Amino acid sequence: MGNSYKHECPHPVAIPPAKPFIESIKSGIEETLFPDDPFRQFKNQPASRKFILGLQYFVPILEWAPRYTFEFFKADLIAGITIASLAVPQGISYASLANLPPIIGLYSSFVPPLVYAMLGSSKDLAVGTVAVASLLIASMLGKEVNPNENPKLYLQLALTATFFAGIFQAALGFLRLGFVVDFLSHATIVGFMGGAATVVCLQQLKGILGLVRFTHETDLVSVMRSVFSQTHQWRWESGVLGCCFLFFLILTRYVIGHLKKGLNPPSVSELAFGSPHLAAAVKTGIITGVIALAEGVAVGRSFSMFKNYHIDGNKEMVAFGMMNIAGSCTSCYLTTGPFSRTAVNFNAGCKTAVSNIVMATAVMITLQFLTPLFHYTPLVVLSSIIIAAMLGLIDYEAAISLWKVDKCDFIVCISAYIGVVFGSVEIGLVIAVAISLLRMLMSVARPRTFLLGNIPNSMIYRSIDQYPIADNIPGVLILQIDASVYFVNANYLRERISRWIYEEEEKLKSTGGSSLQYVILDLSAVGSIDTSGISMLEEVKKNIDGRDLRLVLANPRSEVIKKLEKSKFMESIGQEWIYLTVGEAVQACNFMLHTSKSYNPVTDTVEFDAHDNV
Amino acid sequence: MGNSYKHECPHPVAIPPAKPFIESIKSGIEETLFPDDPFRQFKNQPASRKFILGLQYFVPILEWAPRYTFEFFKADLIAGITIASLAVPQGISYASLANLPPIIGLYSSFVPPLVYAMLGSSKDLAVGTVAVASLLIASMLGKEVNPNENPKLYLQLALTATFFAGIFQAALGFLRLGFVVDFLSHATIVGFMGGAATVVCLQQLKGILGLVRFTHETDLVSVMRSVFSQTHQWRWESGVLGCCFLFFLILTRYVIGHLKKGLNPPSVSELAFGSPHLAAAVKTGIITGVIALAEGVAVGRSFSMFKNYHIDGNKEMVAFGMMNIAGSCTSCYLTTGPFSRTAVNFNAGCKTAVSNIVMATAVMITLQFLTPLFHYTPLVVLSSIIIAAMLGLIDYEAAISLWKVDKCDFIVCISAYIGVVFGSVEIGLVIAVAISLLRMLMSVARPRTFLLGNIPNSMIYRSIDQYPIADNIPGVLILQIDASVYFVNANYLRERISRWIYEEEEKLKSTGGSSLQYVILDLSAVGSIDTSGISMLEEVKKNIDGRDLRLVLANPRSEVIKKLEKSKFMESIGQEWIYLTVGEAVQACNFMLHTSKSYNPVTDTVEFDAHDNV
Repeated sequence: MGNSYKHECPHPVAIPPAKPFIESIKSGIEETLFPDDPFRQFKNQPASRKFILGLQYFVPILEWAPRYTFEFFKADLIAGITIASLAVPQGISYASLANLPPIIGLYSSFVPPLVYAMLGSSKDLAVGTVAVASLLIASMLGKEVNPNENPKLYLQLALTATFFAGIFQAALGFLRLGFVVDFLSHATIVGFMGGAATVVCLQQLKGILGLVRFTHETDLVSVMRSVFSQTHQWRWESGVLGCCFLFFLILTRYVIGHLKKGLNPPSVSELAFGSPHLAAAVKTGIITGVIALAEGVAVGRSFSMFKNYHIDGNKEMVAFGMMNIAGSCTSCYLTTGPFSRTAVNFNAGCKTAVSNIVMATAVMITLQFLTPLFHYTPLVVLSSIIIAAMLGLIDYEAAISLWKVDKCDFIVCISAYIGVVFGSVEIGLVIAVAISLLRMLMSVARPRTFLLGNIPNSMIYRSIDQYPIADNIPGVLILQIDASVYFVNANYLRERISRWIYEEEEKLKSTGGSSLQYVILDLSAVGSIDTSGISMLEEVKKNIDGRDLRLVLANPRSEVIKKLEKSKFMESIGQEWIYLTVGEAVQACNFMLHTSKSYNPVTDTVEFDAHDNV
Repeated sequence: MGNSYKHECPHPVAIPPAKPFIESIKSGIEETLFPDDPFRQFKNQPASRKFILGLQYFVPILEWAPRYTFEFFKADLIAGITIASLAVPQGISYASLANLPPIIGLYSSFVPPLVYAMLGSSKDLAVGTVAVASLLIASMLGKEVNPNENPKLYLQLALTATFFAGIFQAALGFLRLGFVVDFLSHATIVGFMGGAATVVCLQQLKGILGLVRFTHETDLVSVMRSVFSQTHQWRWESGVLGCCFLFFLILTRYVIGHLKKGLNPPSVSELAFGSPHLAAAVKTGIITGVIALAEGVAVGRSFSMFKNYHIDGNKEMVAFGMMNIAGSCTSCYLTTGPFSRTAVNFNAGCKTAVSNIVMATAVMITLQFLTPLFHYTPLVVLSSIIIAAMLGLIDYEAAISLWKVDKCDFIVCISAYIGVVFGSVEIGLVIAVAISLLRMLMSVARPRTFLLGNIPNSMIYRSIDQYPIADNIPGVLILQIDASVYFVNANYLRERISRWIYEEEEKLKSTGGSSLQYVILDLSAVGSIDTSGISMLEEVKKNIDGRDLRLVLANPRSEVIKKLEKSKFMESIGQEWIYLTVGEAVQACNFMLHTSKSYNPVTDTVEFDAHDNV
């Protein structure tokens, strides 16, 4: 009998060989920082080839320019002119949103796209300023310096913030820490963008109603107070607006003012490193830099997926960083890859980053010759351009789908929205990230445990919650732990497992079923364990031994089995009580239960010394 | 053929019924805050019984006192007298460690044990002051107020800190937030205790060398500078100490000073709520409160395990909190369950918390009649008592075992030690907790992915890393994701999976093997997923479709399958490409590969429309 049983259980649990400490550290760092193995093409290449590949790696234009064709150019020319026509009014609008001189917006569509065209790896991304980052600059720097009273200092701080945003972005990329951007979840971005768009629209009430004095706060309450405290100041145009918007474009006379002719002046000397407001500029730079990165990287990646080519997120960050550092020295403020402009670029059929060069050239021509034409652009037109762009950012459909799929993500999204609209852009961001992280931490701190049952006619064991058809095995309690075991959840798991055992024993007592004999812990989902987790297992074993039951482990994974071995827990539980699958563990338990004898599967002997022969 | 195949694949993946949102929130909160289901005994009881059970729940002495026997009392009496003989010198020593009057240490062994005896649920815990918390009080309050210059204010702050520690502890217990203590991992505590013990021993150099002036800093550098800058001040006793310690007890004349006779005076009026140093007192209270809780709860739990009875951590916290609140009003400073005293209590054969009452009575008698006897206790004796107790806390064996089992835990432990010894108690704690959390976050942010292979002669699929005997399946790539998929790891997983596919295709190309056709994702270890994770799966599917491969999912768990269904991803992948086990998924893929036709297992038809019939 022992022999036939042995035949059915031929799969021992393997303990992988121990890796040297240094090697495991090295592979850990590689997995953390180089998950996509960016240097695989360098392997087994001669030095000269490596040099060329390296140059092409850091300056991608060197890689694709030799293969550039006239066909591509025709496509890029059309796309570039199309996005230039968008870049000029958007640049002016967003600059005024950031409380910067409108011409800075135009400058920002000239130098950064050129830099990106050389360093960037996306074929579709169109470079430009974005509304949310502009708003953030206005809100964060506006607290330090009043842009109306001290426009020169304000501009200096904005350029300095751009410089630090660039440094930070490039540093993240160089250090391969791009995953910082991952902390902004999809839900956070949906809520945050919607909130920011709402706030931006509210700010446009200034332009629409023609108000001269306006709050520098961005929250709903302040804006509403500001708007309704000066109802007598509302311009009569606001009434007309409701009836006919077009009317406005002709009638209003609030204009953006004089635009200087000529290309970007250098602005290295404007970087205010010695300013007492430096800390605010650095903080603004880091926050806006991360937000801009998140948008730019996400946009680049989305479009690369359509065309099925690969983008290296960390390399993109270096490109964004370099473009902002260059920008801050040439009178540009923060730029990234705006979704709207990139979508237009893509739809216009762009083939490579040359469309950015075309756009920059078109903006250059505008700057050289056409700026006087914009002199009479009414403020209300700018406001309307901004509002039109913003309304697309309030993605209520995404919010509805979040509600349907994942309530918790919906809460994150709504918190970001409410935080931005009623608090400030930063508050919204911090709340949303905090809730997302907390949710993740809670799921680590409170991993679920499931009762498993046998799927009829199989050796498969699955959660009884999910598969109500799964059958209990009499005398055997099978529990699955749902996550890695760490110090934060070890105590919880100990309590929870002991409660499962207690409840099962109570249930069996009340129904008069056969008494519990074995507790099988399925460790399939336990990817790793720390010493607190091992102590927990030891305590669980002590508890189970104290109740005259037997602990059996199923499918410990390589990290877990290694540590169980080193900590001598494997000795204490006995290697013959560790099985490769739940099915095999149950088989062994059943064998023992039905022979009513104790069986040692390793020595393959049957002993009459019930349940504690090991 | 279709029919015979269908016969082998009879296990559909179940989608559990959707729970109402409120219900799932409720069960989530229950699992988070009441994992041990503390109120299960209240179920189905009449109201009067519920009242009595409730009283007994909150005041456990009511539950066990009626069953108290004379046999128990004899045991408790002996244990109580034993721990009292330890309590008096320890109390005096630790109070002087906290820079408090020695008598406060005695007071602290009178009221708190009485409170704990009524409210606590441990049968073995002996209440008293502890070295680490005493040291923390000295170090944190010493920064605010010099205990030598302003002893009265310092005492007031210490009592106030004790009050807030009690409030905080009780609040954690009432709100069932006891898991806060879990953030102090086993490794953190080992390193922290060792570091604190080292620091305490260093502080004793003052008493041993008989120095009058001494630094108020606790770090190694300051202490050494303080000691060696006044070598001319070293007492000649220090030389003698090396030869004969006992000699000291007779010769030295540095005494602890006058000890007032009589019981604890009330100290409610001493609580300095209006003090400008209130913030420091609150901070000290919270930090020392958590540390004291961690020690007390861990000690209580360890001994309850030996005797196999259950302790409710949250209830213990309420008991500790109440005992410290009561203590702060009766001239006691922070108490908890010290390991040393509890171990002595346990070894002396205590049966219930009555041993604490006995100890309190013995201390009361000491306070009433015997305090003059302690007048001539030499300071060096106190120092030697402290050092002897401290050396036991430097648990280098535990550190060695951490190194063997888990290098990362060892790093946490050593960081805590170094932080405490070279920085301060708080710095050590913060560093250790931060490293532990970071390690946990990293394992969430960088979940591993494993290549699975078939264990010969079975339907079992396991990681090829762990089981080198596992075989590849030609044409099929099987990947296992090792953790829940969240926004922080979604991007990483997308990159990593696409690299697995790329590498497999390269490998097959170079070896000329059969080309890749199927990618099976084993989701067994993915306990939950958020909307960013679902987007990731959608992108992975797009990528796989783009390479003319087919994505197959195996064993999605209930959380995952629910969300896949709601997000319409299940429609897009096709329910017939989701299998209960990897084995069944491989079977289906193999069937398709070998018939070279496309097969729809749901309609059970074979179509000649390769690989995209869904």
